[in-house]
Amino acid sequence: MKAFMDKDFLLQSETAKVLYHDFAAKMPIYDYHCHLDPSEIYENKRYKNITELWLGGDHYKWRAMRANGVEEYYITGDAEDYEKFVKWAETVEKLMGNPLYHWTHLELKQYFNVDTVLKGSTAKEIWETCNEKIQSPNFSARSLIEQSNVALIGTTDDPIDDLRYHKLLQADRDFSTTVLPAFRPDVVMAIQQTQPWADYVGKLSKLTGIEITDFTQLINALESRMDYFAEMGCKLSDHSIETVVYETATEQELDAIVQKALNNEPISLKENNQFLTQLLVRLGMAYHKRGWVMQYHIGALRSANTRLFRAIGPNVGVDSFRDEPIAVPLSRLLDELDQDQQLPKTILYGLNPKDNEVLAAMAGNFQEGGIPSKVQFGSAWWFNDHMDGMVAQMKILGNLGLLSRFIGMLTDSRSFLSYSRHEYFRRILCNIVGNWVENGEYPNDLEWLGQFVQDISYNNALEYFNFQLKSVKVPLA
Amino acid sequence: MKAFMDKDFLLQSETAKVLYHDFAAKMPIYDYHCHLDPSEIYENKRYKNITELWLGGDHYKWRAMRANGVEEYYITGDAEDYEKFVKWAETVEKLMGNPLYHWTHLELKQYFNVDTVLKGSTAKEIWETCNEKIQSPNFSARSLIEQSNVALIGTTDDPIDDLRYHKLLQADRDFSTTVLPAFRPDVVMAIQQTQPWADYVGKLSKLTGIEITDFTQLINALESRMDYFAEMGCKLSDHSIETVVYETATEQELDAIVQKALNNEPISLKENNQFLTQLLVRLGMAYHKRGWVMQYHIGALRSANTRLFRAIGPNVGVDSFRDEPIAVPLSRLLDELDQDQQLPKTILYGLNPKDNEVLAAMAGNFQEGGIPSKVQFGSAWWFNDHMDGMVAQMKILGNLGLLSRFIGMLTDSRSFLSYSRHEYFRRILCNIVGNWVENGEYPNDLEWLGQFVQDISYNNALEYFNFQLKSVKVPLA
Amino acid sequence: MKAFMDKDFLLQSETAKVLYHDFAAKMPIYDYHCHLDPSEIYENKRYKNITELWLGGDHYKWRAMRANGVEEYYITGDAEDYEKFVKWAETVEKLMGNPLYHWTHLELKQYFNVDTVLKGSTAKEIWETCNEKIQSPNFSARSLIEQSNVALIGTTDDPIDDLRYHKLLQADRDFSTTVLPAFRPDVVMAIQQTQPWADYVGKLSKLTGIEITDFTQLINALESRMDYFAEMGCKLSDHSIETVVYETATEQELDAIVQKALNNEPISLKENNQFLTQLLVRLGMAYHKRGWVMQYHIGALRSANTRLFRAIGPNVGVDSFRDEPIAVPLSRLLDELDQDQQLPKTILYGLNPKDNEVLAAMAGNFQEGGIPSKVQFGSAWWFNDHMDGMVAQMKILGNLGLLSRFIGMLTDSRSFLSYSRHEYFRRILCNIVGNWVENGEYPNDLEWLGQFVQDISYNNALEYFNFQLKSVKVPLA
Repeated sequence: MKAFMDKDFLLQSETAKVLYHDFAAKMPIYDYHCHLDPSEIYENKRYKNITELWLGGDHYKWRAMRANGVEEYYITGDAEDYEKFVKWAETVEKLMGNPLYHWTHLELKQYFNVDTVLKGSTAKEIWETCNEKIQSPNFSARSLIEQSNVALIGTTDDPIDDLRYHKLLQADRDFSTTVLPAFRPDVVMAIQQTQPWADYVGKLSKLTGIEITDFTQLINALESRMDYFAEMGCKLSDHSIETVVYETATEQELDAIVQKALNNEPISLKENNQFLTQLLVRLGMAYHKRGWVMQYHIGALRSANTRLFRAIGPNVGVDSFRDEPIAVPLSRLLDELDQDQQLPKTILYGLNPKDNEVLAAMAGNFQEGGIPSKVQFGSAWWFNDHMDGMVAQMKILGNLGLLSRFIGMLTDSRSFLSYSRHEYFRRILCNIVGNWVENGEYPNDLEWLGQFVQDISYNNALEYFNFQLKSVKVPLA
Repeated sequence: MKAFMDKDFLLQSETAKVLYHDFAAKMPIYDYHCHLDPSEIYENKRYKNITELWLGGDHYKWRAMRANGVEEYYITGDAEDYEKFVKWAETVEKLMGNPLYHWTHLELKQYFNVDTVLKGSTAKEIWETCNEKIQSPNFSARSLIEQSNVALIGTTDDPIDDLRYHKLLQADRDFSTTVLPAFRPDVVMAIQQTQPWADYVGKLSKLTGIEITDFTQLINALESRMDYFAEMGCKLSDHSIETVVYETATEQELDAIVQKALNNEPISLKENNQFLTQLLVRLGMAYHKRGWVMQYHIGALRSANTRLFRAIGPNVGVDSFRDEPIAVPLSRLLDELDQDQQLPKTILYGLNPKDNEVLAAMAGNFQEGGIPSKVQFGSAWWFNDHMDGMVAQMKILGNLGLLSRFIGMLTDSRSFLSYSRHEYFRRILCNIVGNWVENGEYPNDLEWLGQFVQDISYNNALEYFNFQLKSVKVPLA
Repeated sequence: MKAFMDKDFLLQSETAKVLYHDFAAKMPIYDYHCHLDPSEIYENKRYKNITELWLGGDHYKWRAMRANGVEEYYITGDAEDYEKFVKWAETVEKLMGNPLYHWTHLELKQYFNVDTVLKGSTAKEIWETCNEKIQSPNFSARSLIEQSNVALIGTTDDPIDDLRYHKLLQADRDFSTTVLPAFRPDVVMAIQQTQPWADYVGKLSKLTGIEITDFTQLINALESRMDYFAEMGCKLSDHSIETVVYETATEQELDAIVQKALNNEPISLKENNQFLTQLLVRLGMAYHKRGWVMQYHIGALRSANTRLFRAIGPNVGVDSFRDEPIAVPLSRLLDELDQDQQLPKTILYGLNPKDNEVLAAMAGNFQEGGIPSKVQFGSAWWFNDHMDGMVAQMKILGNLGLLSRFIGMLTDSRSFLSYSRHEYFRRILCNIVGNWVENGEYPNDLEWLGQFVQDISYNNALEYFNFQLKSVKVPLA
């Protein structure tokens, strides 16, 4: 029997242990997709206590607490921080089988040096230990990032954001981790919500000095913001595509749709699909022109619980995913860009695991000479960021494409402690390879195997994104 | 090499063995969803021979025999019972990889003390041994139930059923197992079959004394039957939802649809969807008001083989499952109930395993303080009741929700021998946990682990359904 | 640690080793579905070098090279053969996790006696060794087939093909492997491409002497070709069904659709679906009448990359698969044939693994007495022909049907070296059974187990297809 979460956690073979400890563990972290707030990094945010740190904004934990029958008062309500922590500890006790159990204990170990299992009966002791640590000077946003050997942080930003904190961070010579924005035009995609859309386009117009009355001007204004983002080092965009659509449209039709939305007239489903298709095509062309990477994450079903959405807003842990067919429209969309040789580097993520194979196989249809795996089947995240999900994503990518070219893990997180997920991912990766090799499926060539896990842990992303880094982080000794 | 189906069947680690033998095995059975006939329980049904017992109504076995090329004459036709048994034995010989192989041998061992492998060459010997046992006085419906330590049996009943045998069983002080009805309004949901629907509504009207000419009266009549069911201890409903739909309608539209159906005029797909949506909403509200549990099992494709349906009727083993998208309409349906805080405790079962993750994640959107995992991702049954299916269901629930709050297995069976499926389930559950713990993924805290498997085997269901039991069954010593 | 790809490759238990070496390995190969060119067999094709042999037409390898960032020039372009081979070797080095890695090394070992791992640094050595072997007299199409102990080769043929080489091969007493055509009416199904369709129908008309102006004449002409194929021993058809549809039509409507297509008028989606449905029904009836087997492989998304399709044509490695629902229309289609007792033996293959369970369960709805597993859930191929895919296909078939009645593997290949895939398949099969038995899940009855793996490797296909073989191949001593 292996001890719980010891140094060989998840490493079931000798090969896996060597690959993890001697190769993967030492690589810097390249966290190209997260939801950290750059102001918190710049201002070197500190925390009052473990509840603020863990439960302040983590809707994964909120969701688990709700499934445990915890009242909202103790989740997002007015309960005392200690009371909330106890409710969380009691929920952890009920989390066998869930990745939150592992993340929680990895974070306790890595950042707090706590080996005690969190449960109702240990809540008080851990509350006190953690809070004491949190008061220590080196427990701040920047310190956590530096401890974690993070080379790059890719945030997620609105096109009209002024990127003030990104600028400040880049000018700050005392902080060696590169922090770059990603261009995520969510609001402009949601044209059926005409009023917020029109308001947003108004702001975009004002900011860029481009009067937006037709589709081309809209694209021009967005491109103008891309250029602004590019000045801050941005080479990455991000799109939440809830339903993949492909509907052709003439320029005239697109202009008419834009004008209707600006006039707050209702946009039909067909018009929405026409607009969305051509918006994605034109944005894709603009990304390609700039050498950017385009991310599509597909299938979210957001704020399914209207009652909680009304009470506490979006992103509160009542989202899941859709299950419509995606293959044909996605194929057409990528093909339209590819036909004109304007398909940028693209990462396809699925939320619903039934799409895994579709996305992995689709990526293979649109590759390009000179860029290894230009179209990537992206890593397992959100609802797939557990061991089974990561194993599935990597095996499917291996079966249908080139796992060795995979750009690896991201945190998708709002927390400065989530770098443990990279550790989790790397252990799982090394374990897969270890099992294969010890079972005689691949040659026991340690140099080759070590390169493989280091590439997926770090090198592939470094090469693929080709970001300008403030300083080159090197593997730990 | 482990011996075939010995006492440690499916238990691959020491921890798994301890968890099963010392914790899970002794728990009573809470079989909240089956298709037993209460009259057979009340009258303490006895069997002529093993063919009547095993092959009289088990369409899972019929289906396997057909796939083995057995002629219908030996399945549901006029062949002699012994001939049918031989054909079944020859089919078992071909069943490697199918759960029927395991269930058959578990039943032979548990109820007949037979260790011989069933195949063509052993058919005669086993036929004789079993039939002798079947003649013994303690081989009756009630005796089988009592031997199996069954605390509760939840049957499946039509709203217009008089529940006569439920009444008799509840009054019978000699039988300690609780038998409760479940409210399953299948016919009233199938409004496109207007003639049977109108006939059924006529009966409902007569039975309740409520003249049904509009939608509200229909609901009133159904609520009246709910009250009747509630008097018999019912706190459970069951809905087979073949295609999940969500279509809004006004009260006027609903009334018009009801009137069309009563007049035997064709109901369009849109009307069907409007009616079905609002029927489910109103029934859900009625269940919530009464503190009942609502079950949705989703995606059946029934009687796909018209030739056999015409020849021998429904439920004869020629069903499979559909594969349309379900996430968005299911989300809307649950949300409509939740918005008014009228969503009852709900169990979501899928027949198509591609829906597993959708259902597990959807459940997490609609939880409620005070009721641990109020919305449940239900157990693997029908086409998923094999080891791979059960493992998948539990791992997915663990990954996306709280496995520890799972209310566990049900038989969905028409046979008094099917309690072996609970044994099968518990062994699989203990094996999953054993593997996790021995691999260092969870703490080796036997008290915690034992509680976990006992909760899923029995305690969670006991608490969740909160049925009034005739007597509290206790774990075996 | 097991050595890489030794004689016990993929065999993790003693039982697996015995089952493979003593039972499965010696069975002849019954490759009922491939894309070999009969002229190459007849003319006993020889190869210039390993590039021509491996990379001349294998779009699986082309696809992998593209995902590795190799320029098209080195894939399908004008680069030297040696350069192409080096690019392939460098790609193999990146293929950990992909079945091409295993196939490549199995082929190197089996046909070239090469144990060296292929990678950039060994490319030259392996290029020379292989090319030398290729020059030896016994390195020809027929020799490779005979070395592989192939009893049967089922090619894929157009209904208007004259089957000249099939005739010659059948008359050739020096070649003992049976080569039979399969009837694959792809063009006639694609009625929306009216011009090629009308041209094709013109040829069909000329060839059969049947003037085709309506639907019945079209069927008559196709049946006439079936009779011609039957004279060459054909008892097998093959249909690529990209989207499964079921739409009823009158004979008049069908005639009108045929006339529109002949006049090159556009065919609506509904008309297409009506035509396709009834074409499949009528062809199914014709197959049934002749005792043929009907194959449906479902869900291809072909030539997704328009740019490469235009540049180098179809079947170049830019295909993937669709993800629409299929259960209901497939059910209706099979049921329409079954209702009149005219459903032929049918094999259902899925490209998208989300369809696995749907197909396995659907097969069980339409079985028939006297033909074990008349409707088959077909083997894992194309995007599923890796270990995970084969394991999934076999476990799902076991869980939902009768794995013991499975007709087993096919190569679906254009290469004379692909028989290694049967070895791969058999090893995986034996490993599954070995694990089951050593884990106590099935009796350790070696005769029974050996029969099981031999049946799936060869005997079941022999019996199911019931082809007239030139000579009965026997298991190797």
